[in-house]
Amino acid sequence: MHTCNFGLCRNISKGQMVFFSSVEVPLACSHRVNGLGPRPWLPAGTLLVGKTGEELFRVVQNTALPVPGVLHAVKGFWAEALVDMEEADSLAFSAASKGLSIAWVTLSDKGAAGERVDESGPLIERLVRESLNVGHAQGFILPDSIAELKQTVMELALGQGYDVILTTGGTGVGPRDTTPEAITGILEKRLYGFEQAMMAASLAKTHNAVISRAVSGTLGGCLIITLPGSRKAVAENLEAVLPAVAHTVAKLQGDSADCGS
Amino acid sequence: MHTCNFGLCRNISKGQMVFFSSVEVPLACSHRVNGLGPRPWLPAGTLLVGKTGEELFRVVQNTALPVPGVLHAVKGFWAEALVDMEEADSLAFSAASKGLSIAWVTLSDKGAAGERVDESGPLIERLVRESLNVGHAQGFILPDSIAELKQTVMELALGQGYDVILTTGGTGVGPRDTTPEAITGILEKRLYGFEQAMMAASLAKTHNAVISRAVSGTLGGCLIITLPGSRKAVAENLEAVLPAVAHTVAKLQGDSADCGS
Amino acid sequence: MHTCNFGLCRNISKGQMVFFSSVEVPLACSHRVNGLGPRPWLPAGTLLVGKTGEELFRVVQNTALPVPGVLHAVKGFWAEALVDMEEADSLAFSAASKGLSIAWVTLSDKGAAGERVDESGPLIERLVRESLNVGHAQGFILPDSIAELKQTVMELALGQGYDVILTTGGTGVGPRDTTPEAITGILEKRLYGFEQAMMAASLAKTHNAVISRAVSGTLGGCLIITLPGSRKAVAENLEAVLPAVAHTVAKLQGDSADCGS
Repeated sequence: MHTCNFGLCRNISKGQMVFFSSVEVPLACSHRVNGLGPRPWLPAGTLLVGKTGEELFRVVQNTALPVPGVLHAVKGFWAEALVDMEEADSLAFSAASKGLSIAWVTLSDKGAAGERVDESGPLIERLVRESLNVGHAQGFILPDSIAELKQTVMELALGQGYDVILTTGGTGVGPRDTTPEAITGILEKRLYGFEQAMMAASLAKTHNAVISRAVSGTLGGCLIITLPGSRKAVAENLEAVLPAVAHTVAKLQGDSADCGS
Repeated sequence: MHTCNFGLCRNISKGQMVFFSSVEVPLACSHRVNGLGPRPWLPAGTLLVGKTGEELFRVVQNTALPVPGVLHAVKGFWAEALVDMEEADSLAFSAASKGLSIAWVTLSDKGAAGERVDESGPLIERLVRESLNVGHAQGFILPDSIAELKQTVMELALGQGYDVILTTGGTGVGPRDTTPEAITGILEKRLYGFEQAMMAASLAKTHNAVISRAVSGTLGGCLIITLPGSRKAVAENLEAVLPAVAHTVAKLQGDSADCGS
Repeated sequence: MHTCNFGLCRNISKGQMVFFSSVEVPLACSHRVNGLGPRPWLPAGTLLVGKTGEELFRVVQNTALPVPGVLHAVKGFWAEALVDMEEADSLAFSAASKGLSIAWVTLSDKGAAGERVDESGPLIERLVRESLNVGHAQGFILPDSIAELKQTVMELALGQGYDVILTTGGTGVGPRDTTPEAITGILEKRLYGFEQAMMAASLAKTHNAVISRAVSGTLGGCLIITLPGSRKAVAENLEAVLPAVAHTVAKLQGDSADCGS
């Protein structure tokens, strides 16, 4: 349980973004929080819960914020207010986790350039929410770039602590299809089983499924699943592996329940 | 449209091999062709079509030909005459592509030594022609040698521009089975989907299919598929992936039709 | 056929361990064997058969035994007496191979610490014996340690000459699951077909099978198959590949029967 001493902003509206750190920063809207320590970090999706159990904020991004006149960028996190909060001098809260945190990333040159509406990304979020207990989900869009995808997935897995990252697009054999190259380079444990299950599901529908080079695996405590770009392939592939996602994340993050039975 | 000025040979019979280059070479039968440029190169299987659409030649091999008295080996290509051509001073033609170009390579110590008749290679060509629109097909035979297979496939994919290369043999676990080692080392994009589809098709027939280490992938604009040595396995494996070959080659060579639907 | 000159022990009981080498060592019970050569080595499971065909000993471990006062550790092997043998001055025998030699290795921190009974390892041995012609089987238990597993499998495959090594445990995504990392690093020929067949068999039972990262392949003349830790997964996975094990080992060890039909 932390005590939050309000800094520059006192009246907070639902939906407002607030920056939390252990030092005061000249930024509206920010809070200096006692007891957060020098490197406050909470996984994206973490809830900040008040004394009586009310959900006050949800963490949406950890960052080190460059602040004029301060030597080192200030570590802290942005959180979204979940309720209206009236003027008060301090506010106590504790961190709580509820459901899985999901990041989805659409790989599309045209989409990233605003020349095409992203339909596969939102489809992923809808299907995942229908199947799993999702506490937090956030979408991203990138051009088909190895460097950008690597950097983004590293950041989301290790910097933001997402439980699951799902990508769509860039898994084929075209000149701009480089998702497998980007992801394979950063996976710690490759999960051929996820790949095989998804391929088998797609092959049951079309011979052309063989063209997909979608890979899966882990990075830190995060499960990474790449999916083809088409909505049809997204749906077919996800259906094959969603039932195993919660179990996999639990094992990955150290659930030591005995498997040997 | 190039204008071909006949060099040393003027009467060409159907089936005759003719060397085309941008300089005159003292070689029967060769042609100096105006407008080919210093590095004439046409993918194997390219047709040279006359003014009225008649197919005159088909390119069968690009090469740099060592010519006595010439400083650098002369770049050009060998083409097969598809019709009889009578004496003429010049001939205009343009390059055209029709159907897929296929190279198949049989890996067999005994076959390469002439101690065994190659039946799997011709079977590949027959099955591929039955299933796909093939413009040109050429067979090769090699002993089970990593170096020779690597060199040959690099040459066929990058030097000759074949659309598809299919190998047979050398995929097992015997001491001389080294096709996967050779091919894996030169693939640019590995296609686990092709491998999985072929393995699943074989497993449906026999438990012993697990012994195959056949790999697939891409090199330049070429799709490479390795197959086991037995005719039975060749047929089972090919059946599983042939329906996807044309689509894969089109995507690989940059067909940018949108996949996102 | 070697002539065995009894050294320090003359009356041998069934089940007794005897050390064989080409020099006399001050060790009960040991034999100096004429004609074994400076590096006696027989694959684990090899039978030592007497003149009239009776099975006298079975090799259980090759080793280089440190002996006080001898410059180099003495190469030889331990063998288990299969019958009672009364006092005699010499004994002639020849080496014979009968059936497959199998080593199974259980990976389990708790099991290795004696805090849990190993049930999956014995299950492997039972299932393998039911399905294959097994001449010799030996179990091992290790904690989930990359270094220990690598060293053990190298030793069993290359130092002891086992035909097949089966491991159970450590194939998941938990922090201590490192069997794939250990084994992948020492495989010479990876057998994706075994992996695919096992995964397909498990997926037919449960979506959660995707979590397994079990790998298979070869090292020297040895077939290595890793299995998940649970008894259920062991049974499902083994059933899918046991029918192909004898064929694979025969091919791996150089059976040159023609595959091309």
